[in-house]
Amino acid sequence: MTAPLKTIEGTSDITPVMRDIGARASAATRLLALSPTAQRNRALGAMAQSIRDSEAGILAANAEDVAEAKSGGATAAFIDRLTLDEKRVAAMAGGIEIVRDLKDPVGTVTESWTRPNGMTIERVRVPLGVIGVIYESRPNVTADAAVLCLKAGNAVILRGGSESFRSARAIHAALVEGLRAADLPDDAIALVPTRDRAAVGLMLAGLDGTIDVIVPRGGKGLVARVQAEARVPVFAHLEGVVHVYVDKSADLAMAKEIVLNAKMRRTGVCGAAETLLVDRAAATVMLKPLVTMLLDAGCEVRGDADVQKADPRAKPVTEEDWPAEYLDAVIAAKVVDGVDAAIAHIERYGSHHTDAIVAADQKAADQFLNEVDSAIVLHNASTQFADGGEFGFGAEIGIATGRMHARGPVGVEQLTTFKYRIRGTGQVRP
Amino acid sequence: MTAPLKTIEGTSDITPVMRDIGARASAATRLLALSPTAQRNRALGAMAQSIRDSEAGILAANAEDVAEAKSGGATAAFIDRLTLDEKRVAAMAGGIEIVRDLKDPVGTVTESWTRPNGMTIERVRVPLGVIGVIYESRPNVTADAAVLCLKAGNAVILRGGSESFRSARAIHAALVEGLRAADLPDDAIALVPTRDRAAVGLMLAGLDGTIDVIVPRGGKGLVARVQAEARVPVFAHLEGVVHVYVDKSADLAMAKEIVLNAKMRRTGVCGAAETLLVDRAAATVMLKPLVTMLLDAGCEVRGDADVQKADPRAKPVTEEDWPAEYLDAVIAAKVVDGVDAAIAHIERYGSHHTDAIVAADQKAADQFLNEVDSAIVLHNASTQFADGGEFGFGAEIGIATGRMHARGPVGVEQLTTFKYRIRGTGQVRP
Repeated sequence: MTAPLKTIEGTSDITPVMRDIGARASAATRLLALSPTAQRNRALGAMAQSIRDSEAGILAANAEDVAEAKSGGATAAFIDRLTLDEKRVAAMAGGIEIVRDLKDPVGTVTESWTRPNGMTIERVRVPLGVIGVIYESRPNVTADAAVLCLKAGNAVILRGGSESFRSARAIHAALVEGLRAADLPDDAIALVPTRDRAAVGLMLAGLDGTIDVIVPRGGKGLVARVQAEARVPVFAHLEGVVHVYVDKSADLAMAKEIVLNAKMRRTGVCGAAETLLVDRAAATVMLKPLVTMLLDAGCEVRGDADVQKADPRAKPVTEEDWPAEYLDAVIAAKVVDGVDAAIAHIERYGSHHTDAIVAADQKAADQFLNEVDSAIVLHNASTQFADGGEFGFGAEIGIATGRMHARGPVGVEQLTTFKYRIRGTGQVRP
Repeated sequence: MTAPLKTIEGTSDITPVMRDIGARASAATRLLALSPTAQRNRALGAMAQSIRDSEAGILAANAEDVAEAKSGGATAAFIDRLTLDEKRVAAMAGGIEIVRDLKDPVGTVTESWTRPNGMTIERVRVPLGVIGVIYESRPNVTADAAVLCLKAGNAVILRGGSESFRSARAIHAALVEGLRAADLPDDAIALVPTRDRAAVGLMLAGLDGTIDVIVPRGGKGLVARVQAEARVPVFAHLEGVVHVYVDKSADLAMAKEIVLNAKMRRTGVCGAAETLLVDRAAATVMLKPLVTMLLDAGCEVRGDADVQKADPRAKPVTEEDWPAEYLDAVIAAKVVDGVDAAIAHIERYGSHHTDAIVAADQKAADQFLNEVDSAIVLHNASTQFADGGEFGFGAEIGIATGRMHARGPVGVEQLTTFKYRIRGTGQVRP
């Protein structure tokens, strides 16, 4: 049996409710910022247990969501993302324990120095504050996002997709039990208690300045809306138009392995390659093997004249392909005049997310790594390493392509800010 | 003789002109990001010389601005801020040389680690991009802000107060000469060529996404407008409601020296103390000497009953005083029940800028430094050290109280962002 939904559905103006949520979250930040690591970790351990204990209730709530979505004509892919089963619930609980076991960034002194007058200055990590997470109907994000924010001492306001509302409520209830078990305030993890889309607009406006940063988790439509409307900072990337450039100095076997992995390991992730650039100076040797390999692997190749000549199965490329993020087994391909032209193409069409060069020539590699203005640039490695886990961050809430504060994978450490602590012995300023 | 003003005054719609400025600044960022330190330093050296060589023209342009402002009835303080003389022009040139001699943050690897698969990941500083600076009629900000942005490899769009328009044009022309002397693009430093206030609104909207961050330099009215309207990140502080808490464990002589310096060294700076909090447990010993000292120094003291009793010259304090930023020889004062109450008062009324504790008790000091959520917290040192120069940053473009990216003094290093450089040997993701 799921608990009856306590919602504010039907309330004509949700503004006061949302403002109250913001004020409570803001009030919780002080307690969270002062909470010892062990207390937050205790809460995270209790949450994992509580998720496991609540499995039946979570699955029942989810079944109602799924039934409603099916009757509403949702696609199979949508239903798959929405559906929980015992394995997914167990993975959610396991994921919380992974976050619990990460290093707590709060309190870390990242720099310290002594001034000529004897004062010492320390730069120390502190929580960011209140993080608003706006996501689509993937119930597990409720837990994943909440615990990452909590680990770094932040309060979080969760607004999930309306189709996963009951699932999110059940998961949220389990998380709150974990907070209580560790004497942390319920308000540390808030779930917006309505499906009313006006809630999103209120969050994007910042809820009276209580929200410090918004993290959208979902497709391009959601991210674009958040980026366009948010009056507070956003950690996000709109798209990953990811390039692999194969230099004339590349080892062909390595190039083949990297290109295949970058494109085909998983085609739906933001670090998947969308464009292949091949150095003209090596095109006669490398173009055909690379293009044929991709086609043989089931990847559609859209290329310029050289690419089409290399393998007649390749289709013609159009100007619309260069800035496209396919997120599918499709790649755009062209021959370019060396590393300079590759960089120029990437700067013109890329999305400043992740780009790679395959090259034995160290000078070409260094030029690429220096000049490509993307959050992540790689030499001789697959672009699919664009992931907080692969960076060693343990977990990530997303990847940011903005230039401010967090750039690249956003893990626990990126969910903190800092302050300066100064210790003196009576110094005054002359 | 000043050069004739080439402006777009009278143009009915300045939008296309402003968009073009944004696009050009954005195009300049790539060249700037790739420019070697020595090239930027050469430009800065040439700028200092060019400012000195242009002294006569700058002073003539400034004289026209001053004459117009006087005939418009500007206050004496306004005229003082607007007026340049030989000494101020020399100081401007000297300031450029100080920035030239700072360490270049661009290219610095701030972290690096190796993954189990052998890939190395580096986090390296890169320029932020395009910085918009909106300031009031202080002509020297034209040079100060521009060179700090350039030092860190950024392009800058300057929009100064309309009363200083001719002065800013003359200074800007000298700066552009310096860019040319080092073969850097003119577009690296743009000055908005109109007094039309609509330019500010366009900049706050981000000029088609070309502006990465806005820095307002000026009074509360300007900062409040920028914070309210900007659609891009802002580095700023609205106000510095700065507290000094004197703990019962404080050395009285040290407390007197710090309080006097924090309040009276300069009353108009953002790090000047506005509220004095004295521990009740030591009030009988410390309150009277502190209050009397301030009054004797010419500071108006507005206090609670205890404060008024300590020295009858003290005036009664009202609720409006606690969140007030006087920027004048006035201080609000009260007795509080120890460090907990001091922290609670600061969190309620403060502005998260700078706050200090005077205490011999290390535990009280640590609690204060940990729990006060301000950009800068000090123990046994004057709050007037809230300044990039005093931090050892060499120069600052302002102090930020926002939680994102830059917090506290914003120097050259804070005007950079970073990217991840990954070097592999053919790694693909399993």
